Formats: sequence, structure tokens, C-alpha cells
Amino acid sequence: MKVDYTDYKAVLQRGIDQKKNIEEAVEKIVKKGVENVFLVGCGGSLAVMTPLKYVMEINSKLPVYEYNASEFINIKPKLFGEKSLVILSSYTGTTKETVAAAKFAKEMGAATIGFTGEADSPLGQSVDFVFANAAKNGVTDSKLIMLYQIVFNLIKHTDNYDKYDDMMDALATLPDNMVNIKNLAEEKAEQFALKYKDADFFMTLGAGAVWGETYSYAVCILEEMQWIKAQPVHAGEFFHGSFEIVQEDTNLLVFQGEDLTRPLLDRVITFANKYTKNMVLIDTKDYPLYGVPEDLRGYFSPFVISAVLDRFSENLASVRNHPLSTRRYMTKVEY
Amino acid sequence: MKVDYTDYKAVLQRGIDQKKNIEEAVEKIVKKGVENVFLVGCGGSLAVMTPLKYVMEINSKLPVYEYNASEFINIKPKLFGEKSLVILSSYTGTTKETVAAAKFAKEMGAATIGFTGEADSPLGQSVDFVFANAAKNGVTDSKLIMLYQIVFNLIKHTDNYDKYDDMMDALATLPDNMVNIKNLAEEKAEQFALKYKDADFFMTLGAGAVWGETYSYAVCILEEMQWIKAQPVHAGEFFHGSFEIVQEDTNLLVFQGEDLTRPLLDRVITFANKYTKNMVLIDTKDYPLYGVPEDLRGYFSPFVISAVLDRFSENLASVRNHPLSTRRYMTKVEY
Repeated sequence: MKVDYTDYKAVLQRGIDQKKNIEEAVEKIVKKGVENVFLVGCGGSLAVMTPLKYVMEINSKLPVYEYNASEFINIKPKLFGEKSLVILSSYTGTTKETVAAAKFAKEMGAATIGFTGEADSPLGQSVDFVFANAAKNGVTDSKLIMLYQIVFNLIKHTDNYDKYDDMMDALATLPDNMVNIKNLAEEKAEQFALKYKDADFFMTLGAGAVWGETYSYAVCILEEMQWIKAQPVHAGEFFHGSFEIVQEDTNLLVFQGEDLTRPLLDRVITFANKYTKNMVLIDTKDYPLYGVPEDLRGYFSPFVISAVLDRFSENLASVRNHPLSTRRYMTKVEY
Repeated sequence: MKVDYTDYKAVLQRGIDQKKNIEEAVEKIVKKGVENVFLVGCGGSLAVMTPLKYVMEINSKLPVYEYNASEFINIKPKLFGEKSLVILSSYTGTTKETVAAAKFAKEMGAATIGFTGEADSPLGQSVDFVFANAAKNGVTDSKLIMLYQIVFNLIKHTDNYDKYDDMMDALATLPDNMVNIKNLAEEKAEQFALKYKDADFFMTLGAGAVWGETYSYAVCILEEMQWIKAQPVHAGEFFHGSFEIVQEDTNLLVFQGEDLTRPLLDRVITFANKYTKNMVLIDTKDYPLYGVPEDLRGYFSPFVISAVLDRFSENLASVRNHPLSTRRYMTKVEY
């Protein structure tokens, strides 16, 4: 499949170019006071924020929580308050539970940042700082660039994180690196699509910085966009239940990053090599990230996986003649 | 199916009888200082602790985290330290990642409580306070009773939770209430087993206090013990991906509690009633809890679901002639 990535690169660049705006926003938020961070959204819009949880767990003493928006507004966590920072995300900007969460956060006096398609959407209008991007391709990758700018800037202030500038330089390499990875992955993706076009079940496996991709690839791509049953399984949890269904024809999609949870995936791979013929491994180590220092590569694992999986999705949809935009219920019926 | 619950009731009672020991342990831990709480384990041993997260989110300003043990020891969260309380759980007491987590916690000077089969197991020997129970039936329910004793006692000290005594009285009703619920659920469970004995895929749905049961019923019972593919889906996440695979013959197991996330399940049920013929709903409201005050019933939802699902599992295993103890890999091969 030949693809023109000109627009895609521009969308990533637009994310990178928000650096100054983000630094100003974070400075204001830090001045107001931040005692904890809440990542709130639904489905893919929530999963894209999962790497921030990983970054903060390792580098920050600030508590960080990830909440499905409807669970958040019904539970109303007791330690949520005016010294909380909430980052909300909804591409349409109309997801009712996410908009409700933003309004609740405002009422509580918390600082709010929103990612959405249009700045004047209900979500955009309900937050202190809005970053809007209505592009057709690359929105999620561009969003993660901005989310990383936010979180690494935040921990520079709150935890004296000392590699902020290196991280920003590394993020600036992504338009070129991501396109290169997509091109490198094309052949593997074509083979994947041909071999698995009739699959009716996948298990996706990952952990740590890559858990968000592991989750969203199963539920938002394979289930939502391809109508193929797909179960996301945490690599550390695999051996305490789900692995018992594995047989030689069980389809395992294994995502191995270079973050601290890499050993968990080693264990999965050793097992899968013995007991199934249908493991597909995406190892971020197989892809170059020019200009990204070795010790920061772990943080870039979700980007690498995202680039490769984009090719998997496009090729699978094409071979199956099932466009990624097909829906049974979403935007079609009331629920 | 006729069952003698004499031993089961005794096992629950043994949990209740730990009240004094638990109060002494928690008092010592509070004196040492608690700034955050970590729940660490794998699979079902982790999932049984999920309701504690729910209890603390609502009632406590202490941060609470749930970690798969292998993710925990590889990530080593930055805010984990000597003012942390870690609760670890492993029935065998030999799960290597959970034992490693206990040892790491000790090195860091954190307070540790362990739940295990035998007090002299590796996990039992690695923690400050051990609660051992090697019974064949009822261990998980008995464990949740003790875990509730711990967490409600903790928040009495740290957050002035004022219904501790009411909660303890309510927990004391469980031996009778749980057996009554199991008996009430028997007929529904028999029908479930007959209708779904040939099922090859389930989606389990739940949220909040019941999320742990939702997760563990899919991966630890249906997948591990019955070798049936089963995907746990958070009720709030359902509409942002997984619901797109639902057709009229898709099997949905819906667990509705009386906790604050009940409205999330209402939405799932409304959808499922329209689009599948194969929804099985377990609503905790359908079961009496004599002696449990109305405003505390939400906390008991995981117990009610557990009692009903125990009957589902036993009947399913019997009709399918696939004992719950059957394994392909666990305890059989190295991995």
C-alpha cells in the first residue's frame, strides 16, 4: 500500500508547535497549585493518555489517576479538588460523560485541559485550556506529542525532572521518524493482513507505557472498526488466567516496548513461542528512532507501536474490504 | 445441585473472627504512618482487592493504587516508600512476582500485610502481618471480609469514617446471607449452565465496586477454569469500542451492583435489551441482605455477585463435564 504522509507529518508538526502555548498553560497551572493529576476520557481518547500515567509513576511523587469519564462523574473521588489537574480528551468534543466530567471539574475549582476536534465544541468550551485538532489523520499521535509536552513540563516543575529539553528535542524528530517507521512496517503489515483476514478472535498483550495501545487496539480498532472479537490482556496478568485458552491456533498480538516492563513481555514471548503458531510480535527495538537518546526510547514505545499498528489496521481493513469507518451503532443509533 | 455449606460458613466466620487481630495490626500501621496504599497481586488475587480501591476512592483522601505484581516490581513507583501500606495476596504464597513485591516493599520500609494459604509460605514469611487461610472453599469471600475489616478500620483512623461499627456488624451477617443467596441463585444458575454450555465467547460487564468480579469472572473462571474465551469490559467503556461486535447471539454477562456506578449498568442493560437475545443479568438488588443497612449495600455488591457466580461456575462446570480444577499450563508446565 502506497501512502502519502504529507498531511500526517503536518499534523504532528502542529502538535510540536504548541510547545510555547503548553509551557504557558502549565506554568499557570503550577502557580495555581497541583497536588494530583486525573486523566479522564472514554475508549481511545482515554487510552492515548495511559503513557502519561507511566511517565508520572516513574518520575513523579504526584498521584496520577486514569478514569473512564462516566465512572469519574459517578464516583466523584474524595481526593479530587481545586488542587487537581484534569486532562480530558474527546475527539468530537461532544462525548456526554466527558463533557459532564469537565463541568464537574470546573465546579470543583480544578485546573482543566481539554483535547478535542474543535475549540468551540462543548468540551472545548468547558475547560481552562483547549488544544483543538480536527485533522483526519494523525490526531492521536499529535495528541500524545502534546500530552507528553504537558506531562514532562509538569514534572520539570514539580519533581525537578532534568531531561525536559532532551525530551522536547526528541519529540521534534517524530514527524520524520514516524513516517519512516510506517514505511518500514508496510511489508509486515501486508503479511499480517493476508494471514489474519479471516481471524475471529485476537488477544492483544502489552504493559507499562504500551498498555494504552494494547487496550485500544483490541477494543477501538479490532472490535469497533473491524468487528473482530479482541481481548486486551496485561502481559503480567496473562499467566494468571487468560493463558489457559491458548492453543496452537490462538492469535496473539504481542506489543513489546523498551520501557521498564519489557521483561514482562519476554516471558509472554517465551510462552507463546512454545504454545501457539499464531503470535505476531511488534518489538519497538526493531525500529530506528533517529535523534532519540537511548535512555528516552522507552517513552517513545507507544509512538512506535502506534505507527506500526496504523499500517496493520489499514492493510487489514483493505484486505477484508471493511473500511475502518464502518459502524453498527456508534453515531447511528441512540444508546 | 444440592450443596452442604457448613464448611463454607465456617471459613467466612474465621475471617470475621480476625477482627481484633486486624484492629491491632492497623493501629500499629497507622502509628507508623500511612500516606498511600498499594494493592499488589496477580489475577484473581489482585481482583479480590479491587473493591478496596472503590471504598477508598469514595471515602479517603489517601491515594490508592492497584498493581499487577510484576508491573509493580519493574516500575517501582516513585511515590512508593516507607509511608506506604502494601496489601499483597497470593493463595499459594509462592507466586514469584508477588513474593518479590513483598520483599521489595520490606526493603523500602513500607508496611506490609499478606493474605495467603499458609503463614509459613514465602509470601507469609515476607510480610509484617500475615492472614493465612488454606480452606478449599470460601477463601476469596473470607479474604474480602478481612480486607474490608482492614480498609474500613484504616479510613476510620485516617478519614474519620464514622460507620465502622455498622460495617463490622453488617459483615458479621455474611455467613448466613451468602448461603441464602447461593440457594436463591441455584435455579437461575442451572438455567444459565444449560443454555450456555456450548458458548465459545462471553463478554462480562461491570464497574465500580463490582469491577474486580467482572474482571476475574472472565479471566480466572471462564478462561482459566473453563477454557471459554471471555472478555471483561468496563460498563462505561463498552460504548466506546467493544459494543460494536454485539449481535443478537452475543453472550453478555452483566453484573449490576448497588454502588455508585449503578447508572453505568442501566445504560448497558437498555442497549443489550435491544440488540442481543443473550444477556444474562445479575442484579444485586434481587437478593436480600438481612441486617445490612440500605446505605451500606453498595459495598456488599461484590459479595452478592460472588455468591451468585459461584453457583454459575459450579453448574457450568458440571453440565460441561469440565471440572473447575482442570488446567493446561498452570502448575503443569514451566513458564
